[in-house]
Amino acid sequence: MVSSTFYAIIAGVGSGTGRSVALKFARTYPVVLVARKPESYNDIVSEIRQSGGHAIGVSADTSDPAAVSSAFKTIHDEFQGKKLAAAIYNVGAGFAVKPFLETTLSDLDASLSSNARGLFNFSQAVLPSLLSSVPYSPFPPTLIITGATASLKGSARFATFAAGKFAARALAQSLAREFGPQGVHVAHTIIDGVIDIPRTKGREVNGGIEDGKISPDAIAESYWHLHTQHRSAFTQELDLRPYVEKF
Amino acid sequence: MVSSTFYAIIAGVGSGTGRSVALKFARTYPVVLVARKPESYNDIVSEIRQSGGHAIGVSADTSDPAAVSSAFKTIHDEFQGKKLAAAIYNVGAGFAVKPFLETTLSDLDASLSSNARGLFNFSQAVLPSLLSSVPYSPFPPTLIITGATASLKGSARFATFAAGKFAARALAQSLAREFGPQGVHVAHTIIDGVIDIPRTKGREVNGGIEDGKISPDAIAESYWHLHTQHRSAFTQELDLRPYVEKF
Amino acid sequence: MVSSTFYAIIAGVGSGTGRSVALKFARTYPVVLVARKPESYNDIVSEIRQSGGHAIGVSADTSDPAAVSSAFKTIHDEFQGKKLAAAIYNVGAGFAVKPFLETTLSDLDASLSSNARGLFNFSQAVLPSLLSSVPYSPFPPTLIITGATASLKGSARFATFAAGKFAARALAQSLAREFGPQGVHVAHTIIDGVIDIPRTKGREVNGGIEDGKISPDAIAESYWHLHTQHRSAFTQELDLRPYVEKF
Amino acid sequence: MVSSTFYAIIAGVGSGTGRSVALKFARTYPVVLVARKPESYNDIVSEIRQSGGHAIGVSADTSDPAAVSSAFKTIHDEFQGKKLAAAIYNVGAGFAVKPFLETTLSDLDASLSSNARGLFNFSQAVLPSLLSSVPYSPFPPTLIITGATASLKGSARFATFAAGKFAARALAQSLAREFGPQGVHVAHTIIDGVIDIPRTKGREVNGGIEDGKISPDAIAESYWHLHTQHRSAFTQELDLRPYVEKF
Repeated sequence: MVSSTFYAIIAGVGSGTGRSVALKFARTYPVVLVARKPESYNDIVSEIRQSGGHAIGVSADTSDPAAVSSAFKTIHDEFQGKKLAAAIYNVGAGFAVKPFLETTLSDLDASLSSNARGLFNFSQAVLPSLLSSVPYSPFPPTLIITGATASLKGSARFATFAAGKFAARALAQSLAREFGPQGVHVAHTIIDGVIDIPRTKGREVNGGIEDGKISPDAIAESYWHLHTQHRSAFTQELDLRPYVEKF
Repeated sequence: MVSSTFYAIIAGVGSGTGRSVALKFARTYPVVLVARKPESYNDIVSEIRQSGGHAIGVSADTSDPAAVSSAFKTIHDEFQGKKLAAAIYNVGAGFAVKPFLETTLSDLDASLSSNARGLFNFSQAVLPSLLSSVPYSPFPPTLIITGATASLKGSARFATFAAGKFAARALAQSLAREFGPQGVHVAHTIIDGVIDIPRTKGREVNGGIEDGKISPDAIAESYWHLHTQHRSAFTQELDLRPYVEKF
Repeated sequence: MVSSTFYAIIAGVGSGTGRSVALKFARTYPVVLVARKPESYNDIVSEIRQSGGHAIGVSADTSDPAAVSSAFKTIHDEFQGKKLAAAIYNVGAGFAVKPFLETTLSDLDASLSSNARGLFNFSQAVLPSLLSSVPYSPFPPTLIITGATASLKGSARFATFAAGKFAARALAQSLAREFGPQGVHVAHTIIDGVIDIPRTKGREVNGGIEDGKISPDAIAESYWHLHTQHRSAFTQELDLRPYVEKF
Repeated sequence: MVSSTFYAIIAGVGSGTGRSVALKFARTYPVVLVARKPESYNDIVSEIRQSGGHAIGVSADTSDPAAVSSAFKTIHDEFQGKKLAAAIYNVGAGFAVKPFLETTLSDLDASLSSNARGLFNFSQAVLPSLLSSVPYSPFPPTLIITGATASLKGSARFATFAAGKFAARALAQSLAREFGPQGVHVAHTIIDGVIDIPRTKGREVNGGIEDGKISPDAIAESYWHLHTQHRSAFTQELDLRPYVEKF
């Protein structure tokens, strides 16, 4: 049964990780789906409602502080008196793969905006709510940030993408060390592989072998596990990759 | 209901992580508990049997190849026709905390023996069985190795302990990269804190705060999650620490 | 004797690392000192000239692409026909140490601007010159980026600073992997301690022990070593810390 | 001119790194070359003597504590009244590259012996001497340990090699943290590539490109730099790789 006391927020939903995480968390909590455009969340909202869950969609570019502020006004109105159990930051635009001298400052800014500034705005909006849920939440209130291979390693042609992903990881670590002792679980994930979503359908990965792309539902299972970890045993960083991935 | 087709092996059981992991996995699989002395597993075997599970204990010093060979003869006789679903290496002797010039080669050898040689012998014994379970196991056959803070960082006075723990992590990574693509999930954990067990009862950790020591049952939950991960989303390394731990 | 064929650029000079690096490189190359304000480089320019070296100062905020573009027009005019041997990015503003919920997006932007956007603009300006020096330079043309403890670890109250430093490290790694094979040495340093400069005079560090703060001249020696490394043995990342530093 | 007060010890000499390091350090210090067999050091001893340096060779298997003890008796007799300035551990046997299930416990033991036990014995022998040199040595007394790619990453087919190399890195880190504050510089290097020595002559590396293998003389330059670093700016870990190496 879906909780009537707690809710969860997932920023960055579409056809991949965000959708699967939303569906998974919606089995337990009413969920708020945040995306820049309604097209990204409308179908998921319907899907959750049809299976008996509770979901709303809110449009916001998380890198824009005014938009985040306005979105959270809507969210707080909608969930007045309820407690935030989990917030997932899964926004991942700003992906330009080019030789460095062909990239522009706009490429860098796009990556820093979606990965770092957006996470900053989102974290500032959700952390006070997560903190205030600490005494009540059945599981430690949780903030999960989705990272990538490029969160750990800067590669040729990935300079701007890696810059944003590294910055997000810095924020995640800093928040974990500041808010962990206050009871909020901040975790960062390294999604080290191609996710199996409609957009990557045509891409042959790992020789086209079965399960050579990451199932977004499997990611959602691990996110749920992170959320339900006991506060004496928090994971700060979790890597996920297909069994056949080179690493 | 406990499986009649698969079984699990936990090496290194006593009053802490090993016991909790054994109890957790025993809800699904018959389990083999390996320890140097029967005193270490007898109570757990009873506890599992009383709650309707199936467990046997086998005595072996994993750093002794003849002892491992003999133990696995016993195990294979007992579980003839059954498939190995999971093997956990949780052996952790060899812990000498001393100024380097007061340590002896025996301290180093004790750490290398229990952490590296023991893991080597254990891995050579279980990997053929895990490989042969790949086509059958409901979850990817899994080898989990318990590490510690000292697996990542060599500290003053921890030289010999860190040497063994680093070596075990090297084996874990190498096995993950070799056996992952064959369908076996090899995961290494970083237990970054003091575990809440009878032996650490008197130790004031993290200011004596509640849940400032790691619950071994919480570790077991995460080990079970690792075991049940989909093969498209394996975690290779998982850190676990109390919410109040400095890191 | 100072080279009449090659020159070096140091961005981010003042009273610390930048000054020492400038003095060290000025023994071999004419140097360009880049800082936001002439007050930061005027004294160093004089000091170098008085000891027989060649130096010019150029004012620019490296995070501003137009300013960088204009500064490099000046530099290229001044050093027409000469080859760039080394470029050091040592800019380090944007240092706000505060609880996360007291930081603002401006704090984050300041850190991202000086550490990531500035490095991006600087790298785009110097890399074509460094590449064109490859066939001529006695030592492999070199780009060195100054990092800090916060380049490796996000800590409580250091979220925004770490975000910028992580992003810079991502750029450094990406550039190393892209431009190394083309003959340009890109190195990143981890300055893990307090630097012994006028500004930190009053700060008691490491119990006030002698040499408990990092000598900027010692940093300069290591930067010069990086610059002179043979291309078959490039260091990508170099840590530097006082002998008494905890790490 | 070669010092008459200080001396250096290099364990693990042959045709590669050890030889180049010995030649480099011999320009300043009398050197002791340690190897299992005289064939490994005889030519280098001659080469150093012919160029006006002072060198002796001592045979010892560093993994054998009695042999190390006897070797250091010889060394201390020979250099009575002199101070140890630097000790380099460059021993690197135990290299078995095989599928894990084809390796034997002897392969693991060989790697642990030369990389970990040998380093342990060597460190116990040299550290008291290095400590007693602290007040006198022109450069901080230094212990340098040669590592490899496998010190950082366990790869398929490299399990036993990585186990030894990880263990050595653990020792190096622990010693750095314990003896650094006492004035001894302990550094670990990551030699990330194939070294250009007679034994690797036939191996085509990095497409056979010029300088695609690491020059051992370049390694020696970096070791000397480590030795001469000011105690306010110690490097703990230094990576070295060819400009064209993938990493």
